[in-house]
Amino acid sequence: MSNPQFTFRQTTFTSPSLLLTRRNTVSRITLHAQLSQLRANGQYDAFKLKWHPIFDDNSRWPAPLHLFWDSDIGKWIEGACYFLLGEYDVKIDAAVRELVEMIRSAQHDDGYLNIHFSVVEPGKRWTNIHIRYNAGHLIEGALAHQQYYRNDRLMEPIQKYIAHIRKRFGPGEGQTRAYPGHPEIELALLRFYSATGSQDAYDLARFFLEERGNPAGQDGKHFYDWEAEQRDEPRWKRPNSWPMDRSFWYCQAHDPILEQTSVEGHAVRAMYLLTAAADMLNLSQGAGDGQLAAKTQSLANADEWLTALRRLWSNMVTKKMYVTGGVGAVAQWEGFGIDYFLPQGPDEGGCYAETCASVGVMMLAERLLHADPELNGEYGDVMELCLYNNVMTAMSADGKAFTYENQLASCEGARSEREDWFVCACCPPNVTRLLGSIGGYLWDYGGEGDAAFVNVHLYTSAEVKFSVGGREVMFSQKSNWPWEGKVAFELRGAKDIATTIRLRIPAWSKGDFVLTPAPGSDDFKVERGYLYLSPAYVAENSAFTLDIHGFAPRYIAPHPYTNQRTLSLARGPIVYCVEDADNEWEENHFKDIGIKAGEDVEEIWRIDKIRGEEYFALKTIGRERTPDMLERGEKGVKRELVFVPFYFRSNRGGKGQMRVGLRDDGKH
Amino acid sequence: MSNPQFTFRQTTFTSPSLLLTRRNTVSRITLHAQLSQLRANGQYDAFKLKWHPIFDDNSRWPAPLHLFWDSDIGKWIEGACYFLLGEYDVKIDAAVRELVEMIRSAQHDDGYLNIHFSVVEPGKRWTNIHIRYNAGHLIEGALAHQQYYRNDRLMEPIQKYIAHIRKRFGPGEGQTRAYPGHPEIELALLRFYSATGSQDAYDLARFFLEERGNPAGQDGKHFYDWEAEQRDEPRWKRPNSWPMDRSFWYCQAHDPILEQTSVEGHAVRAMYLLTAAADMLNLSQGAGDGQLAAKTQSLANADEWLTALRRLWSNMVTKKMYVTGGVGAVAQWEGFGIDYFLPQGPDEGGCYAETCASVGVMMLAERLLHADPELNGEYGDVMELCLYNNVMTAMSADGKAFTYENQLASCEGARSEREDWFVCACCPPNVTRLLGSIGGYLWDYGGEGDAAFVNVHLYTSAEVKFSVGGREVMFSQKSNWPWEGKVAFELRGAKDIATTIRLRIPAWSKGDFVLTPAPGSDDFKVERGYLYLSPAYVAENSAFTLDIHGFAPRYIAPHPYTNQRTLSLARGPIVYCVEDADNEWEENHFKDIGIKAGEDVEEIWRIDKIRGEEYFALKTIGRERTPDMLERGEKGVKRELVFVPFYFRSNRGGKGQMRVGLRDDGKH
Repeated sequence: MSNPQFTFRQTTFTSPSLLLTRRNTVSRITLHAQLSQLRANGQYDAFKLKWHPIFDDNSRWPAPLHLFWDSDIGKWIEGACYFLLGEYDVKIDAAVRELVEMIRSAQHDDGYLNIHFSVVEPGKRWTNIHIRYNAGHLIEGALAHQQYYRNDRLMEPIQKYIAHIRKRFGPGEGQTRAYPGHPEIELALLRFYSATGSQDAYDLARFFLEERGNPAGQDGKHFYDWEAEQRDEPRWKRPNSWPMDRSFWYCQAHDPILEQTSVEGHAVRAMYLLTAAADMLNLSQGAGDGQLAAKTQSLANADEWLTALRRLWSNMVTKKMYVTGGVGAVAQWEGFGIDYFLPQGPDEGGCYAETCASVGVMMLAERLLHADPELNGEYGDVMELCLYNNVMTAMSADGKAFTYENQLASCEGARSEREDWFVCACCPPNVTRLLGSIGGYLWDYGGEGDAAFVNVHLYTSAEVKFSVGGREVMFSQKSNWPWEGKVAFELRGAKDIATTIRLRIPAWSKGDFVLTPAPGSDDFKVERGYLYLSPAYVAENSAFTLDIHGFAPRYIAPHPYTNQRTLSLARGPIVYCVEDADNEWEENHFKDIGIKAGEDVEEIWRIDKIRGEEYFALKTIGRERTPDMLERGEKGVKRELVFVPFYFRSNRGGKGQMRVGLRDDGKH
Repeated sequence: MSNPQFTFRQTTFTSPSLLLTRRNTVSRITLHAQLSQLRANGQYDAFKLKWHPIFDDNSRWPAPLHLFWDSDIGKWIEGACYFLLGEYDVKIDAAVRELVEMIRSAQHDDGYLNIHFSVVEPGKRWTNIHIRYNAGHLIEGALAHQQYYRNDRLMEPIQKYIAHIRKRFGPGEGQTRAYPGHPEIELALLRFYSATGSQDAYDLARFFLEERGNPAGQDGKHFYDWEAEQRDEPRWKRPNSWPMDRSFWYCQAHDPILEQTSVEGHAVRAMYLLTAAADMLNLSQGAGDGQLAAKTQSLANADEWLTALRRLWSNMVTKKMYVTGGVGAVAQWEGFGIDYFLPQGPDEGGCYAETCASVGVMMLAERLLHADPELNGEYGDVMELCLYNNVMTAMSADGKAFTYENQLASCEGARSEREDWFVCACCPPNVTRLLGSIGGYLWDYGGEGDAAFVNVHLYTSAEVKFSVGGREVMFSQKSNWPWEGKVAFELRGAKDIATTIRLRIPAWSKGDFVLTPAPGSDDFKVERGYLYLSPAYVAENSAFTLDIHGFAPRYIAPHPYTNQRTLSLARGPIVYCVEDADNEWEENHFKDIGIKAGEDVEEIWRIDKIRGEEYFALKTIGRERTPDMLERGEKGVKRELVFVPFYFRSNRGGKGQMRVGLRDDGKH
């Protein structure tokens, strides 16, 4: 198993690349801005285990406002270490070092390690479902720390902590058959296993995955029922995120994972959980390309896990995903609604599309590109959709402001705006660590002896070095993606190695591409969204160019069962929106604007005056018609509409009025 | 104040009349069927205060399954007495008499009267928000009982019960500043006041209305916060109908009524509450036409109550009502969603449209026709819309089966079906008592000295007798409504009485009507949906005919902000649906069928073979296109579609597939 968090450092970004632009911003601006926030809000010092005023707040149950502080630190350390690998920064380095020492000092003798249950409720260890989420992010932070610092200052206490947890939870005598309310530790433990070969870590993760949703796990009862009994809590006492009593689906515990028929509940939890399941499946298929200490862990029912993962993925992608790659229509449980329930905003029935959830979709998609024996372009397409839309929109172009929810339409109660920070600050450092390791998402590669492969999932300008049978191979791509489809590839050092190259052909291109030099009919095939190039073609053409067509602006209508009378504009992988910064006349969140499929769309290359951001804007004609005008059958007011990439919204001030899907006024 | 439950007996229905048909069915079939259900399910004997197996069930909190049994009996008695007035039935009579004796025997010495808190939790009187709902229905039953039996066998214990309640609740010392969780007693008390002049009843109702939502009513706290404290219940323990803690809007207690800006929460509660508010306003404007014992009760801030009622009514009618007159999009709290959130079925995001809620809308509309000094046809239009659609669909043509929810589209999880009975059996007897008193909804009338008026709100065939200055006046209408618009009126016995007649012109007719004989230009005007006929015209034409046009089938599109890409068919006041009984090829709940506005619609007069029901069916052409076919831009399969009235659905077997709004395929 080779996770992107391990492999990213083999990739170097080159120019031009929107991803490189964002990575530079995070490295130079965002990490510092987030560090300031952590210092100002109390997280930074929290492992000193002193009282903080926020600990007095008990307005949120069962997860008080500060409950995730451990994870905020863990995630920031993880992101920081990824970027330190690329670009040294003395302040970031010093902060990581100090944080690690504070974490070490906060550990109990028995290995226990948690801020809240050390300071606020010391008697209530392991009574709250979130704690293991914190542990998971500390583990991931430790792995990143070890990768950069090449020491065990953080790994050491984390290893002790894992041993402590392993002792307490499991199927054995004196253990509890529990599993986390907020999955995350599962994928962290499997990463830990991959890095260290710790059987304990693997066993614990697998127990959590297999035990989850067991209707009779603990003393013949569902663990959450048993837990509520232990706490002597009435069935009707429940968190605000649970609409009904026993809403175990909120944390994907309504059924064992293998029996779940649809993706349900809190979207981030679901994505982290399924990512771990995909990791477990990956580990059963081989431990990867040799960089890892772990051995293959056989899984007798691997086919069942594959079937379940495909089923839940498919349910999400075909019935529960917005055109922006956002998932989660319902704010109350920050998660999935019923099939095809995808309103664009809270004033239209819902829309949450949390940043972390789409980061999670990307993680799951990347894992499935390996775990599913059928290489499938849908995973890559969705990964790219999330990256350039729902995820990238979550950070401002200047790297200092963030979103948590990413609605497709603003309203008076939820303007299109970004914030410096959040009380629950999961999203900002998640974008950081994703961009820190994004090189690992671009491609897979590897080989043994005289055979090698490269599967390219994302296009940009970058190069990767890896070894095959002791020889160093270099593979590079250069493009102006996501704006143009022409990508120049070069393979070096692979002479005499039979290299198969697979290149993703996005579904929106409708398979329209040109490869130069042109391959013979035996030298390529297109299967499930990938162009396969034979070793013969590659041997003959160490440099070649793929030109993916289909970048003309296109209209997208949602699935008819969504009952959404809307049309959106997209260009390549980029989904567009209108906002009042360009359309200053707008006063009603574009509720009254209709467009027609087939209307001409003009493309305008823009360089933003303030941010320097370069992108294609789109221009077309729409009609403003109020409900009254529509009822009277009037033609309405003609409006010239300027669209910008959804990710670029809310970077230029304005009134916070924005919309992705406009009223569908029929065909032209 | 003359409520329809008092005045209906002055009206006699004649043929032809769909309302008369339904009334005969209820009188001869439904009352007996419901009585059998009450006997079989335990309600009938419950006032004997013996243990029943259902009392052991504690799966529902805070309202166990049997908590409403008192109200089931009260409501059935009310309906039974209304029908006994028209048609004597020895079995019904005997049952009412026996029930009344059982109720009398169940009363405690101090006046307390409730099944659950006498048998199951005798120590917990007044700890549950629903009890006063039960009391309200017992009061209404007692009023109907007295009207028919002309004795106080039921009024007597009820009067004692009211005195008991009055003593306990109010602003005085030793009293609690509480109000019911489920409004109903307020309107019952005001009816009681109207019938008896009991100042206690009026004061208690007014206290409940004015105190509701007071943020600092009881010991400086919101009463529900105070109550939870008394019960020592954590804030996060809450009924399943409360999505969040402190969801006081569920029972309209989030703000004082006068400050509420939108209609929220449980729809039945909201309607009963606002009906009572309208009653209070009515009582401030005069005690009615002399039949009642009550005197005018002045209300210093009557204009504020009128403003609040208009505001909440308007919010409901323009933003929260289905085309069928159904209200309540959300099943969890059986109530209102956000503005314009009106999916057609549970698999599309929601739809509840409870039968009782539309009965409540009719009650509120009828009250507002008096309470609002501006006679407004919108109240009458909505009352009629509810009557012939969401309410009438709630009972089968044979009078033996009922609905609770009235979705506009079926799905696999919620087929279009009726049930014999419900565990929570509020809806069936509500339809019964509504049809029992429906004569009171047709018109207002009255007069003094030499001046009289008749305001006709609903058309059918019926006559009414009333006295003006000691003289008996008879007014009649004859029509084949709701199928044809021609209504013949006759006024007798009103010679020398200057009579103004106002006739509702439904909005869907677009004001297109012909009056015969034709009036002179001074003899009529049309204002806010009513045609005003001058006393001069009426004196000259004791018989005249109004022919309302606009019965041609019409396409209805929902408000654009609902984002529903649907079209429905209507004809006059009747809203139509397709169901598989006529369209046997359908297998997917008509999800894939589209229609075009402007496509020809054929009208077919039908007499149903089994039920004898007569109605216009509609026939038009649609296109079946699966999502795949739509995406490929295919024309699809041409389908001949037969529509029947929504109220007639699910009377002829079939697969329970039905839909009101079909996919809008644009203009023809």
